[in-house]
Amino acid sequence: MSTAEKWDQLQTRIAEVDDIQKAAGLLSWDQQTYMPAGGAGARGEQLATLERIAHERFTDPAIGELLDDLADDAAALPAESFRASVWRITRRRYDRAKKLPPDLVAEMARTSARAFESWVKARAASDFSIFEADLTHQVELARRQAEYFGYEDTPYDALLAGYEPNLTSADVDRLFSPLRDRLVPLLDSLRPVLHRVDDSTLRGDLPHDTQIALTGDILGLIGFDFRTGRQDISAHPFTTGIGLGDTRITTAVDPDNLAPALFASIHEGGHGTHDQGIPAELDRTALGVVESLVIAESQSRLWENLVGRSRNFADHLLPRLREYFPAKFDDITADHLYAAGSSVAPDYIRVQADEVTYCLHIFLRYEIERELIEGRLAVADLPERWWQGMHSLLGVEPAEDARGVLQDVHWSYGAIGYFPTYALGTLLSVQLYEAALADDPSIQPALQSADFAPLLAWMRQHVHRHGSAWSAAELVALELDTELSAEPFLDYLEDKYRALYGL
Amino acid sequence: MSTAEKWDQLQTRIAEVDDIQKAAGLLSWDQQTYMPAGGAGARGEQLATLERIAHERFTDPAIGELLDDLADDAAALPAESFRASVWRITRRRYDRAKKLPPDLVAEMARTSARAFESWVKARAASDFSIFEADLTHQVELARRQAEYFGYEDTPYDALLAGYEPNLTSADVDRLFSPLRDRLVPLLDSLRPVLHRVDDSTLRGDLPHDTQIALTGDILGLIGFDFRTGRQDISAHPFTTGIGLGDTRITTAVDPDNLAPALFASIHEGGHGTHDQGIPAELDRTALGVVESLVIAESQSRLWENLVGRSRNFADHLLPRLREYFPAKFDDITADHLYAAGSSVAPDYIRVQADEVTYCLHIFLRYEIERELIEGRLAVADLPERWWQGMHSLLGVEPAEDARGVLQDVHWSYGAIGYFPTYALGTLLSVQLYEAALADDPSIQPALQSADFAPLLAWMRQHVHRHGSAWSAAELVALELDTELSAEPFLDYLEDKYRALYGL
Repeated sequence: MSTAEKWDQLQTRIAEVDDIQKAAGLLSWDQQTYMPAGGAGARGEQLATLERIAHERFTDPAIGELLDDLADDAAALPAESFRASVWRITRRRYDRAKKLPPDLVAEMARTSARAFESWVKARAASDFSIFEADLTHQVELARRQAEYFGYEDTPYDALLAGYEPNLTSADVDRLFSPLRDRLVPLLDSLRPVLHRVDDSTLRGDLPHDTQIALTGDILGLIGFDFRTGRQDISAHPFTTGIGLGDTRITTAVDPDNLAPALFASIHEGGHGTHDQGIPAELDRTALGVVESLVIAESQSRLWENLVGRSRNFADHLLPRLREYFPAKFDDITADHLYAAGSSVAPDYIRVQADEVTYCLHIFLRYEIERELIEGRLAVADLPERWWQGMHSLLGVEPAEDARGVLQDVHWSYGAIGYFPTYALGTLLSVQLYEAALADDPSIQPALQSADFAPLLAWMRQHVHRHGSAWSAAELVALELDTELSAEPFLDYLEDKYRALYGL
Repeated sequence: MSTAEKWDQLQTRIAEVDDIQKAAGLLSWDQQTYMPAGGAGARGEQLATLERIAHERFTDPAIGELLDDLADDAAALPAESFRASVWRITRRRYDRAKKLPPDLVAEMARTSARAFESWVKARAASDFSIFEADLTHQVELARRQAEYFGYEDTPYDALLAGYEPNLTSADVDRLFSPLRDRLVPLLDSLRPVLHRVDDSTLRGDLPHDTQIALTGDILGLIGFDFRTGRQDISAHPFTTGIGLGDTRITTAVDPDNLAPALFASIHEGGHGTHDQGIPAELDRTALGVVESLVIAESQSRLWENLVGRSRNFADHLLPRLREYFPAKFDDITADHLYAAGSSVAPDYIRVQADEVTYCLHIFLRYEIERELIEGRLAVADLPERWWQGMHSLLGVEPAEDARGVLQDVHWSYGAIGYFPTYALGTLLSVQLYEAALADDPSIQPALQSADFAPLLAWMRQHVHRHGSAWSAAELVALELDTELSAEPFLDYLEDKYRALYGL
């Protein structure tokens, strides 16, 4: 085989694995949107089969041989070239995937299907004991994975790298430490004046279908393309790319409160525009998916918070609210709307947390995950540890576990090491937003006239076009010529919330 | 490996292939219901990949070895036992699948994806020339397949057997000949009096969503279980089983005419109750899918025609129409409704054909398919041949090809030999219906009081419970102690339509 044929062969094999993974993505999407309840068992089997086959095909020794044979050719190319990136990314993924024995992969799939079911039941009953055995098994599997992957400082690092390439807990600690040092005092300063902002503006009798119509309109406004995308309903909002030209976001609606559907839709819309922005020529290649969850979250948090929760956006939102909910918003001003969307309230649920308290929810999960993986905390002691952490970080009192340790789905499918990327993506969102405004002076005035295209174009050019070629740290170095940092986020947060709360 | 372990091994491999095929089934369902237009290309690739992997896995020589090793064990069991049936069905499918070289399978998948797209365009433009080259390729591929499969009398037989096990054109001719001999005179006798039945009763301004709500209600009434099923919207109605506990039917709505959505929903509901009736213990085994398309069609046609178009059903339909469409049906009687649902009108479109003319549409397709496969007709001459056949069989004049040779999707995905099963299933539906009424005297009075459970229970017991263990011919021998025959259908048809048209 010639070198050109070897590159083609590698591409063919990657494309096949991508097809299987996208098919699995559709099965998951359907499971959460349209699947009748009776189909759950069969769907678990189908997903496990597709995941196993994708893993088998991707770890075929032929891929390793192709990578070996193409190493010199790739090394001779500029690092940012398509082939050099394909080689680098595939090498990293292949080496990582090869470290897990197929039996362990199969056990992970089976355990995840079972643990997801017990988690659903446990949360519905708010009874941690229903989930305890399966979670114990997941923690044990995660520790076994970490041993296979290998690590320097802590087994937790081996897991983290599965969600953000090369990320270590030392990186996380370096960023979380200043974050904590300024977030906690900020929240303390706000506590006495939380009553100054009223969030009732977004509450009331707000029919489900009207909320969907409104959020669909707003998704179109910020640049989500419905010719190559859809919006559906699910219990928990998410975004998934099913392949070129097919990006799906979901929305959950609370008919008494517009805030969850509104901000979660804009959040998922950020993920959606990211997926839609990956160049067509990267489709079905090693670079065609979003791999860095920090970069992924930077896009969703940017649109949710820096755009969607801005004072400026309230000006564009208000006329639409008046159109979709006649008479309900007649006495509301854009100032009210802005304040209601940004009200701070230390509370139980991460996905509904405001900008100030959000990262505190992440800190708790990060601490607990490390304690579990490093063997310093037993699963049986989790609920108690949870409430102790919630009290010390957010000052809330213990409540039912459904609003505590059982609230998030992640651990049920074995995703340990995922949560920190939410906070790091939030930090990155501010760095990218500020860089975009500084780089293109047309963005700010365009935002004021509800034209989001220049901001989206900047993200296309500086973030989306790379596909999965770079980690968040690499992207920040390449595009922003700096490092991932908490300071811009903290400066933004202090400025915004001190002003909003009149401090 | 012990014999027991070999049976387990065979089961594991079959289950895996079934998972992949069910995943492909969901991808197809989604393609026709929710997929954004932009996703078509990627979906074609994903489907081709899954089909190729399913074929690879199913033709793995290890399955052949297991079948060889288990042959004596299977032969020692009663033919109707689970393992004997699994062995028999798997042997037949494996031997058939092995006959096709993988390259040909891949070429079929690619050609089907392309030909489907050109068919969609050709039909939209009513321009056969857009589809001609791809259809020529499909016919050529079908002929190559037939050579690989092998046949005794005509290559067409090799294709027929892909839709109904062991069916030959001699069988089809034996049944179609008396059918034609009595159908044509029946239609001729009706022609002068077609004006006696008015179908306008089911026409009018009938909103889309109300039609869906009504048909959903009727699906529930006849026994389709929405806990393990769904109803969605698609351009062409179909039913697909996505696995145990997940059966999906689709409905197409004409907002000016209730008949298409009403009867097609009941038709698909028949397929749906069949899929839902396959015993859970057959799931993910060789017996867990509906393989005989004649048996499949017997269930859909039974509910559509013998139940849905019965005089008795009109009594149950009328109050529901009045509930869903207030005031619209106040002056209509159940007699009007019955007559409108059974009006005869020789026309262009097969899927909207009445009970009398339906099989004539099938005859034409059967003749043309044989001529194409036996090399007696060139694809280029198809439109002319079509209109000549439509004129001689149905007496309609040539019109645009969109309402002619381009109306059906089947040939675009290479399904040649499929159409005859529609007519044979129609014949079987009457045999099964009459056997059920004769066997269980509680069925008829139950139908009169809108209780469809006894009829469904009979089908569960005599048809559904077998899964794919038997061909239609075998099922008729086993359960009805007779042969597939056209006479019961013809007797039913002549009695019903002579009375309805006052002859």
